[in-house]
Amino acid sequence: MGVVAVTPLGELIIAKTRQVPDFPTPGVTFKDLTPLFADAAGLAAVTDGLAEAAHGADLVAGLDARGFLLAAAVATRLDLGVLAVRKGGKLPPPVHRESYRLEYGTAALEIPAEGITLLGRRVVIVDDVLATGGTVAAARRLLERCGATVQAAAVVLELAALDGRRAISPVPVHSLCLA
Amino acid sequence: MGVVAVTPLGELIIAKTRQVPDFPTPGVTFKDLTPLFADAAGLAAVTDGLAEAAHGADLVAGLDARGFLLAAAVATRLDLGVLAVRKGGKLPPPVHRESYRLEYGTAALEIPAEGITLLGRRVVIVDDVLATGGTVAAARRLLERCGATVQAAAVVLELAALDGRRAISPVPVHSLCLA
Repeated sequence: MGVVAVTPLGELIIAKTRQVPDFPTPGVTFKDLTPLFADAAGLAAVTDGLAEAAHGADLVAGLDARGFLLAAAVATRLDLGVLAVRKGGKLPPPVHRESYRLEYGTAALEIPAEGITLLGRRVVIVDDVLATGGTVAAARRLLERCGATVQAAAVVLELAALDGRRAISPVPVHSLCLA
Repeated sequence: MGVVAVTPLGELIIAKTRQVPDFPTPGVTFKDLTPLFADAAGLAAVTDGLAEAAHGADLVAGLDARGFLLAAAVATRLDLGVLAVRKGGKLPPPVHRESYRLEYGTAALEIPAEGITLLGRRVVIVDDVLATGGTVAAARRLLERCGATVQAAAVVLELAALDGRRAISPVPVHSLCLA
């Protein structure tokens, strides 16, 4: 599926994205945003766009690994902290853990169960690409189980055909660019 | 080994670090910086400290995965771009790749071979913890092979007994806290 840019920011995102056809499987075009983030103007524009979606949040959650990059940029812009939501097995105990289903098998997300207060916090979840929404939905369950309110998800690129919004509903999704 | 805090920033870092004894193996105390980064004042202080070490750089390189978080915060503070240096196997081709030895087996770091110009760039490498220095040294080789100059490495926590500085020498290491 092609990428549709309808805003100047969307055009910048597409211009700086490395699109690799037939990766990881034939028929799929991989969107590598690394060059966008390595560009000072690109990173600043994306950070500003995501920060708008984070308005009113008091904590920014980033998803392991590329979401860390964007969430930290947004948190720095807004003078907030950033919560690294890790893939399972990376953190020492005790942790809060939430499992979710992949196409083959399962995966898990974890955060420390000590040292971070989530009760009553208003959190925005930040990631680079929204595909099926399974990871964001799991992060939402994890954070809400710890007493936080997830007020929005913010992503750079939304693969609209995969309908990730539905998996996260009714939490709103803000995406800077549709593909 | 205990943690030695000799500055107010070092004291803040230690106060917000989750120290987990006997993880991952008996006798080792794991330092989990997640709560430090989730704290707005903690993230801001660490970002400012690392940004000082990045003075004069025109690109900030972050190491997969926790280094992404700090590198993006520093890049945002300094209005620079951030280069995500990925673990091997995450990126579509073509990539530049550098292998390095682990205690058991080998690992690799990769960056895209298209879309990012490194020739003549002045790069600072950012990560959370400096241990043996093997990963930072590999990142340095990778970036310099692409024509960049690595002017410094900047980390939050340096495990001084592991002598990671020697692996990176003569590139200077700036650490905010010794352990």
